[in-house]
This record gives sequence, structure tokens and C-alpha cells, in this order.
Amino acid sequence: MSKLIQQLTIIGVGLIGGSLARALKQAEVCGEIVGCGRNEAELKKAVELGVIDRYALDQAEAVRGADMVLLAVPLGAMRAVMTSIAPAIGKNTILTDVGSAKGSVVDDAKAVFGEMPRNLVPGHPIAGTEKSGVEASFATLYQGRKVILTPLENGDEAALKTVAAMWRHAGADVVEMSVEHHDRVLAATSHLPHVLAYALVDSLARMDETGEVFKYAAGGFRDFTRIASSDAQMWHDICLANRHEVLNMLGRFREDLDALTSAFETADGEAILKCFSRAKRARDHFSKIMAE
Amino acid sequence: MSKLIQQLTIIGVGLIGGSLARALKQAEVCGEIVGCGRNEAELKKAVELGVIDRYALDQAEAVRGADMVLLAVPLGAMRAVMTSIAPAIGKNTILTDVGSAKGSVVDDAKAVFGEMPRNLVPGHPIAGTEKSGVEASFATLYQGRKVILTPLENGDEAALKTVAAMWRHAGADVVEMSVEHHDRVLAATSHLPHVLAYALVDSLARMDETGEVFKYAAGGFRDFTRIASSDAQMWHDICLANRHEVLNMLGRFREDLDALTSAFETADGEAILKCFSRAKRARDHFSKIMAE
Repeated sequence: MSKLIQQLTIIGVGLIGGSLARALKQAEVCGEIVGCGRNEAELKKAVELGVIDRYALDQAEAVRGADMVLLAVPLGAMRAVMTSIAPAIGKNTILTDVGSAKGSVVDDAKAVFGEMPRNLVPGHPIAGTEKSGVEASFATLYQGRKVILTPLENGDEAALKTVAAMWRHAGADVVEMSVEHHDRVLAATSHLPHVLAYALVDSLARMDETGEVFKYAAGGFRDFTRIASSDAQMWHDICLANRHEVLNMLGRFREDLDALTSAFETADGEAILKCFSRAKRARDHFSKIMAE
Repeated sequence: MSKLIQQLTIIGVGLIGGSLARALKQAEVCGEIVGCGRNEAELKKAVELGVIDRYALDQAEAVRGADMVLLAVPLGAMRAVMTSIAPAIGKNTILTDVGSAKGSVVDDAKAVFGEMPRNLVPGHPIAGTEKSGVEASFATLYQGRKVILTPLENGDEAALKTVAAMWRHAGADVVEMSVEHHDRVLAATSHLPHVLAYALVDSLARMDETGEVFKYAAGGFRDFTRIASSDAQMWHDICLANRHEVLNMLGRFREDLDALTSAFETADGEAILKCFSRAKRARDHFSKIMAE
């Protein structure tokens, strides 16, 4: 019987790539899943765990024969991987990715392929845990989660449909938006908060030579700074890849913070209370519709 | 048998005051606990729940005969309450509070009493939940939590000892520091994070007319902005009461954020990675010693 995907090659078999592979195995929609990565021990483990069927260390070899290639590598590695696989992928091979910024992936593809590959479908699953590696992967990671696809102008319709179908088989809720819109929205709700959390913790740590400040930190601070425990290299890649939108958001936020600072300077309690109250109302309202 | 406290009067019988009353009842260290507040239905409920023994709506009447008075009212109400009780409290009555900023409480006391009352022991339990009201109170709220006392120069030693003993009977870990030090540390770990969270959520909500931004927010954003769901009036009181230290911290943070913004402007990945990595290291290190 014909499968949705005959050969899926996943480059980067960690939490994200591995969880998708597990879900697709359960859904029985792939003929064969081939893994690729730099760490052979991890790939062997992925085969043992039944996450992938086989692996190749060489990227060009791994994508040979694939009708779908999923790039699940850090954004900073995207261009190098595209360069390696470009000579080996077929004319009809669908190329998709899971990067947290989409403009940089599109730029990488343009630079590597000369023109935009019609079969490229940039994607971003809004899911993850603080863990990483194939051992942390699980089949239900995408259940009920949003996956944003950012189809390109003149992109292939059939390729888009296949990528969307793949994510739906993994249990995801697939939505489409433009590359620019994705990068603006994610700069607001994800990249800027990470920048602020890292900046605050770094700021406090550097003024806190005795480690005393953190001793009196309570649950609120713990929650507020949890994202500063995220992988620093990965978030460096993401924020730098989307730096124009991150800068745009930093600029807006800084204007608002300046206004609030002025209110503190003049002890303008009314302005402070207005800001806090609006924020509380928005947070309470939106806490119902926020993704898990 | 003589008790640690013969009559404890608690002004403001909500989560904080009510939980202390419950703990002290269990420890059997008070002769009588008298409640006071503006909402008679709440006070009746407090008696029914066995949290307090009796109540008075009039503040002067409530403190009459008390050897210890605990002010568990918002910081913005502190001065008015002190003014009401000043004529009624005895010469040896110990006065303590639970405010999240201490300099403003000391200033209020100076203004109301003319000189600093020797029996004033400012305090701040680092505990709470997102709930409020006497029904949310429970006897183990302070178990293992830190309570910071900020004894005054020339303050009465015996009063300090009694307040410390009271909190220890409630299960708390009592520490002492100066008023100034308390306000600096709490500005860093509590007040500034609240200001940033409120500012960010307000900033996003105002640019997000369609409510779309929050739809794609994931768990990290939810954690980061949880404190923006806190009571806006209460945090307005706290941040305004400690505004000099809040402004000091805002200034430091803004300098560091400006430096990070410059790094994004020049695409200085190394500087960004250094900041993120230092922050992650500090957060991981201090997550072990942070208060629950």
C-alpha cells in the first residue's frame, strides 16, 4: 500500500526530530525513516529505540532516495546542512524544517539553491520540553500542539499538503501564515521574553557577588526566569537569526519601559496602576487561549 | 500557663494574616487572637473557620489590650491604619507587619508616631500563593519559608525576640537584615521582575489588537508572564513604596539591556552568547538555593 511518505530522512534526531519520527511510526504513514546526525552513538540508540529504521553519518547519503527531508538542526547549522545535501536531493524531494525563525531559513535556502526551491515548506512546531536528545523524545509531543507552516509564494501546493498531513498524523494543529508574520509573532511571544530573562538573570548575577540575592527569590522569580535555563547556544542562534524582529520588539518594549520608568520617577501611581491592571487583564484573558 | 503572646491582634485577616493565625493556633502560643478588617462577612467567616477567636471592626477597639499587633494590610493602607491605632495601643505593645517593602513602613511609623516606636519590628514573610482571602489561608503556609525581620537601631531586643519566636512557631526560617538591604534585595528578585512582566504583557497586549500574538505563546511565555497575573493594586503599592530601589534596579537593568541591544544591532553573536551562557549558568546554579 502506498504510504504518505516513502522515505523520510530526518537530519538531527533529537527531541524534536525523534518525537516526530515516533509519532509517524505509530501512525504508519512512512515507508522508511532514515536518521542522520553527527553523533553515531545517538543514532545507534535511535535505531535501538525504534525511532528510526536506519541511519547514515553522511548527509548526502542520508537524503538519497528520500521523498521528504526534515531539517531538525539548530538554525546556525541550517545553511551548512543545505549545502551538503543540495547535490544529493531529488528534483521532487520535499524539504521542510522545524526552525524557530523562518526568514533566516528562507535566506539560507536562497543562498544555497540560487533560487527558492519550489518544494521547500518552512515549518515550526510550537512544542518542546527543557530536555533534549533522542532519549527524551516521545510520540505524543505534538498532540494538540500548533505547528506553523509558512508556505512560500509560488511554492508547490502538493508539497505543502504533504507536510501539513504529516504533522496532522503526529496529532498537531496545523496553521499557515507568512514568513514575516511568523517571525514577528514569535519575536513577541518567545524571542523577546528569552532575551529579557537572560538579560535580567545575567544582570542580577553580575551584581550579586555573594549569591545572596537569589537566596531570597521566591516562586514568582523562579517562574519568571525559568526560560533563562534554556540552551544558550540554541537561543543565541534563534535570536540572532531573527534579530531584525527581535530588535524591533526590543525597541517597542524599551519605549514602554521608559514610560513606566518615568512614572516611577514622578511617583505617578495612577500611570503605574493603569499599566499593571491592563497587563493583568490581558494575561488573565489570554491565559485561557495560550498554547500549553 | 503563660503564653508567648496573650492577645494577638491581626489587622487584615486574609491569606497572610489568616495563615499565621492558623499556625499559631496549632502551636498553642497565643492566649487569644483578635481579627480586624473592613469586611464583616470575611471576619465572621474567619471566626467560623476557627482562624480567629473574635473580631472588631474598629481598629482602635481591636488593638486594645493586645501585647502584639500584626499589620497585614496593603502597603498603601499602612499609614492610615497606624494613625487609627496609635492612640489605642499600649506602651509595651509590640507592633509588627508583613509588608513586601520595609523602608516605607518605617517612614509611615516615623510620620505617625513622631519618633520611631521602640517596639516596632518590621517583617516580611517570603511566602504566598496567587490566591487571597481568609478561605485560602492554611496553617503550613510558612513551613520552611523565610521570614525577613529588619530590626531598627535602638529597637527593643525583647520585642524582636518575641516576633522571631512567633514566626518560628509558624514553621518559618527567620533571618535578619537591615531595612535598606531588604529593600535592595527584594527590588532585585521580586519588584523588578514584576515590573518587567507587567510592562511586557501590557506592551504586547496593546500592539496585539486581534489577540493573535498570545495564541502562539507556549509554556515558556506562560511561565515568564505568570507574575503579571498577580494583584495589580497590591503590586502597585509595593513597587511605589520601594520606588527608589526599583528605579535603581531599572537603571542597572536598562544599561545591561542597552548593551545587549547593541550586540543585536551589530550582530555580535559572541557577546549575545556570553550573556545568555552566563545567565543560564547562574540560573542553573541558583535554582538549587532559591526559596520554594
